[in-house]
Amino acid sequence: MKQHDGQFLPSSNSTPADGDNRTRRVTPNPINDFALRSPSSAEWGAHKKNVRIVGTEDKVLRRVRSGVLEATEQVEIPHSRPALLLYHAKRILIGSPIASTNAERERLTKLKALAVLSSDAISSVAYATEAILFNLAGAGSNHLGLTFPISMIIIVLLGIVAISYRQTIPAYPNGGGSYIVAKENLGTVPGLVAAAALLIDYVLNVSVSVAAGVLNLASLFPALSPFIILLDVLLVILITVINLRGVRESGSILAFPTYFFVFTALLLIFVGIMKAFVFGHQPFIGQFAPISQTEPLTIFLLLRAFATGCSAMTGVEAISNGIPAFQKPETRNAATTLTWMAVILGTLFFGITVLAMTFHVEANAAGNPTVIAQIATQVFSGPLTFLFPIFQIATLGILILSAETSYSDFPRLTSLLARDKFLPSMFSLRGDRLAFTTGIIVLALLASILLVIFKGSTNALINLFAVGVFLSFTLSQTGMIRHWLRVRGPHWRRSMLINTMGALTTLLVALIISFSKFLEGAWIVILLIPSLVWLFLTIQKHYITFERECRIEIPIQPENIHSRLVVPINALDRAARQSLAYARAISSHVTAVHVSINEDDAALIGKTWDIWQQEHIPPEEDTHLLIIESPYRVVVRPLLAYIDTLHERHPDDTVTVVLSEYVVAHWWENLLHNQTTFRIKTALLFRPGIVVINVPQHLGGRHSLPSVVK
Amino acid sequence: MKQHDGQFLPSSNSTPADGDNRTRRVTPNPINDFALRSPSSAEWGAHKKNVRIVGTEDKVLRRVRSGVLEATEQVEIPHSRPALLLYHAKRILIGSPIASTNAERERLTKLKALAVLSSDAISSVAYATEAILFNLAGAGSNHLGLTFPISMIIIVLLGIVAISYRQTIPAYPNGGGSYIVAKENLGTVPGLVAAAALLIDYVLNVSVSVAAGVLNLASLFPALSPFIILLDVLLVILITVINLRGVRESGSILAFPTYFFVFTALLLIFVGIMKAFVFGHQPFIGQFAPISQTEPLTIFLLLRAFATGCSAMTGVEAISNGIPAFQKPETRNAATTLTWMAVILGTLFFGITVLAMTFHVEANAAGNPTVIAQIATQVFSGPLTFLFPIFQIATLGILILSAETSYSDFPRLTSLLARDKFLPSMFSLRGDRLAFTTGIIVLALLASILLVIFKGSTNALINLFAVGVFLSFTLSQTGMIRHWLRVRGPHWRRSMLINTMGALTTLLVALIISFSKFLEGAWIVILLIPSLVWLFLTIQKHYITFERECRIEIPIQPENIHSRLVVPINALDRAARQSLAYARAISSHVTAVHVSINEDDAALIGKTWDIWQQEHIPPEEDTHLLIIESPYRVVVRPLLAYIDTLHERHPDDTVTVVLSEYVVAHWWENLLHNQTTFRIKTALLFRPGIVVINVPQHLGGRHSLPSVVK
Repeated sequence: MKQHDGQFLPSSNSTPADGDNRTRRVTPNPINDFALRSPSSAEWGAHKKNVRIVGTEDKVLRRVRSGVLEATEQVEIPHSRPALLLYHAKRILIGSPIASTNAERERLTKLKALAVLSSDAISSVAYATEAILFNLAGAGSNHLGLTFPISMIIIVLLGIVAISYRQTIPAYPNGGGSYIVAKENLGTVPGLVAAAALLIDYVLNVSVSVAAGVLNLASLFPALSPFIILLDVLLVILITVINLRGVRESGSILAFPTYFFVFTALLLIFVGIMKAFVFGHQPFIGQFAPISQTEPLTIFLLLRAFATGCSAMTGVEAISNGIPAFQKPETRNAATTLTWMAVILGTLFFGITVLAMTFHVEANAAGNPTVIAQIATQVFSGPLTFLFPIFQIATLGILILSAETSYSDFPRLTSLLARDKFLPSMFSLRGDRLAFTTGIIVLALLASILLVIFKGSTNALINLFAVGVFLSFTLSQTGMIRHWLRVRGPHWRRSMLINTMGALTTLLVALIISFSKFLEGAWIVILLIPSLVWLFLTIQKHYITFERECRIEIPIQPENIHSRLVVPINALDRAARQSLAYARAISSHVTAVHVSINEDDAALIGKTWDIWQQEHIPPEEDTHLLIIESPYRVVVRPLLAYIDTLHERHPDDTVTVVLSEYVVAHWWENLLHNQTTFRIKTALLFRPGIVVINVPQHLGGRHSLPSVVK
Repeated sequence: MKQHDGQFLPSSNSTPADGDNRTRRVTPNPINDFALRSPSSAEWGAHKKNVRIVGTEDKVLRRVRSGVLEATEQVEIPHSRPALLLYHAKRILIGSPIASTNAERERLTKLKALAVLSSDAISSVAYATEAILFNLAGAGSNHLGLTFPISMIIIVLLGIVAISYRQTIPAYPNGGGSYIVAKENLGTVPGLVAAAALLIDYVLNVSVSVAAGVLNLASLFPALSPFIILLDVLLVILITVINLRGVRESGSILAFPTYFFVFTALLLIFVGIMKAFVFGHQPFIGQFAPISQTEPLTIFLLLRAFATGCSAMTGVEAISNGIPAFQKPETRNAATTLTWMAVILGTLFFGITVLAMTFHVEANAAGNPTVIAQIATQVFSGPLTFLFPIFQIATLGILILSAETSYSDFPRLTSLLARDKFLPSMFSLRGDRLAFTTGIIVLALLASILLVIFKGSTNALINLFAVGVFLSFTLSQTGMIRHWLRVRGPHWRRSMLINTMGALTTLLVALIISFSKFLEGAWIVILLIPSLVWLFLTIQKHYITFERECRIEIPIQPENIHSRLVVPINALDRAARQSLAYARAISSHVTAVHVSINEDDAALIGKTWDIWQQEHIPPEEDTHLLIIESPYRVVVRPLLAYIDTLHERHPDDTVTVVLSEYVVAHWWENLLHNQTTFRIKTALLFRPGIVVINVPQHLGGRHSLPSVVK
């Protein structure tokens, strides 16, 4: 393997025996290491004020072995003052960069994973019972007791879904989200449908949970009311920054609010049950305050109550989607965490429903006070009153943090889509802290846009919510049925039965939600999903075409390239002479073109050229001046017309345009130069087969072609 | 003179005897002419939908003589559909382009010049008398008769200034505005002060006259009131478009309103004087309705009344500034036009003041109804009542059109400043219709910004107004004094006396305005003028430095250029192979650089390179692969660090970076590619001494280096 062997690099700096010794990376030696200077050490001349004296400690590249260099951490440090300021701000906000080799260390413990991945699911106990009560209230207060059996059904369903996902985890150890499972078992389009549905729901979840959190905050502190949109956006930025710090650190920061809520909610349930059944002797289902019936108790009403209660199940798939974020052994840890989550979620949901029944709490249309706030008021009374505001704050915390599940899964899902070429490749690149930066930022942007458009009020958004989750559940469960049919491992019949039950129930819920909320906004989601799928497929088609084209073999050799050079010149000044010299060094077919909007100029340049050519250009060389007179004072188009003609007349030659561009010391000076060069460059970008050479002309001392300046 | 002799152009298409025959331009011959194809005829391949079959009638370039082509009118016609649409819209708005050779034809007749250049001056009779009356009203109604002597003094002053400018015109036949006269006679800084003062006043004049016009319109049609800012901006756009159609055409369009106003105003004066002194026998100065005195009749009050009345004189310098716009003989035509203007202005001002006196019209603070509206009500009464609305509309027209004088002079003054390098050179370029497009558009933008900021109410702006005019008058008159002292032609003593009187009076007016309006806003102008002068000088300094640098002779020859080529590659795909071939055709020092953010990729590319190098690269050639491992997943900076090091270690060589850039068929596809290339390009733009070669990779069939595709 003949590779570049430090031939541009002085060998005196490197020990002769350093060959392939990779351990040198771990113990850098400032003397023996090959020290390259920092990026901006070359910014002398026009940029003197930014120059930094660079010592050996400031190394950017380090020699690993023959033909291989390695970039050090220094590579990220910029040297111009504003860029350095930005860099430090970024380091303070999101921390120091983490090397790819340390990826393992960034995994989540079960405790942190539970906090990050289940915050969405657990937060839903704050409103699931209320949703059922509110729907049943249509049939009057007599049937509110039905909340209990409906909740039980949901808990059973939760169990089924959780068991089903536990089966998915070992089957798909690299992440078994709905996208993967549906794609592998049902085909690309169902997979993309699941992905599109989930992405929409993730964005909505962030908007809704942030908006709900801020509204709660504003009702605690009314002075904040005028700033709701601002607070929404600030909160999104805060969560975004925390997530850009990487998976492990966001896990550490966000674990507390989750466990704080779980603890206070368990306390509420314990105290409530003690009060009701141990110290007091309340009936299991209390006497609800009378509400007049507005509609009959139909099966449809029951189904709607059931469907809205199913909002408790959003977020359940987060864990199986997030397997790669777990510490090793990933699958076992993920499975255990899933069980914990289902148990906690089930317990809390059960407990709060029981308390709502026995303390006969009703949901009111305004949602204020909420059902759990009413329960807490009754439970934390007397000497326990001080616990009420604590519980309120814990609820607020978990509501806001339910956004975190989206922040965890959205970037992961988009990175999977990018890996499969359904999204731009940048979604699959990990940022400084190994997080999928692009996905996080796109999620934050989309959620912020929704918040600003809807002015932080999410009543409209809530109707779009949850369709996607159940659609993706259904696809995932159906995918698992096919999986069992294909694989037929041990107990495959039982597994398939569980998944079939899951698929049918979640399909039913998806249908109920779609129908009952169709006019309120679910139609948007139902239109958006196919649009996204179309987008994914278009992007993939583009990448596939692109790669096919890149694979076309062209047996090109340097001796086949015949260049014809065009050098647009404005006058025969330094820039023109340098560009002409560079052009003549490449080929002997050089045409200088001057577009003249003024006959006197044309005559002058013609005369100057004549003298110069006689002095400098050997008579055998094919270097000429072409003047294009432009009576309509158009400069760029006649030049392009000439270039195009040349290209067309000589299809076997490579037409190369040499442009000299002035590089000025201050940005405003660009207003004084370069407009024509810029327009030529832009126009040539869309011309096929024209090579463009930029010869920079630095104003302020340094010249472009250093060979002759000494 | 060895010039390019159609060597890339087939000689079969051109008759052998067409040599230097310039008449062929006038009689184009589609067969014999050298027909080059249109700019986009080369847009095949990826851009198929935009391709247009190009016939002989669609020629863009035409051969004039050996080494000289000429661009035809076709050169402006774009070929992509959106650009063509824009082109047609532009043609409808501003008309077909005019060749530079037709510049003569675009000059103004005296009649049109009078309309365009004096609209500002003439429009001021609509408010000058009112301004004097309003100021005198402070001393009570008893002294309102003083309006007449003050007006007489202003008319005498107008005569002096007009005579003085008549002397300037033959002395400065290429345009004798204050800038030129002050610069030539008093030095650069006084010239720039005059220019800055005038530019400010021109912008203010547009804002104030458009705003006044729209407010008048809105008081006629109250339904328009909510749309004042929109109407302001639309009116500015309308006047801008008319001016972009060129000097001659805007003259034709705008002549009517000016003459319409002059005619109706003369009619008003004639009818009014007949009514007052022929049919009736009114006293010359009527009995004004009593107003209580609020301040004593001081000399300061009189001076203030005089100074504000001098607003009648703004716009007088427009004609001497605009000499080059006149038909030949320019100076005689301009001088005649100036006399006409002074006579018309003096007559109208005198007549309206007399009518105001004899009909004892008072100015009210609201300015509604205006003094001339009150006069018109009284004069056009009885059977003549129908003339009242006509006169109102004529007044409205001239008020709006007073903006036109600014549109005529601002671009001309900025083009003079650009010619002298005090403004970016684009201000001196003539557009399609030979108008100074940049100046017109900048004026429109600045005026629109003022209108939007001040919400179309110009009370605040009026206080900034007129300081500049009188400052520039003073400088111009003072310049003329020095001129006579230097030149001492016939009657120089008399001329100098006139200019001295003019200088003293205008200085007095400038001082009075500055003092009496200092706190109301004149301070802004007094601060703005030195800032603008500083800006002009800074720009000139930059251009001078730039030109000095461009003149530095570097005896560069192609044999002195030693290129070292760096080819960043992502994989060894088609793009990389083409770029490498192109690089190897230039130099044998070629380093392909792969920045690896993934160890597997690095190993793969190393292996592929190895095989490829053995097959394709002769062992004596210095072409190598360098892999830079980047554990922090940063791609651009390590590459730059390497390029900088190379540049630093080999200061005598020219480091050239070959980038292959994918040219995609749709703009959105750029989101899928090129981010890295784009970032490398941007970063290299600020590196001194690095040449960049772009090898475009067109997706969709065509290949970049056509030599081997056949």
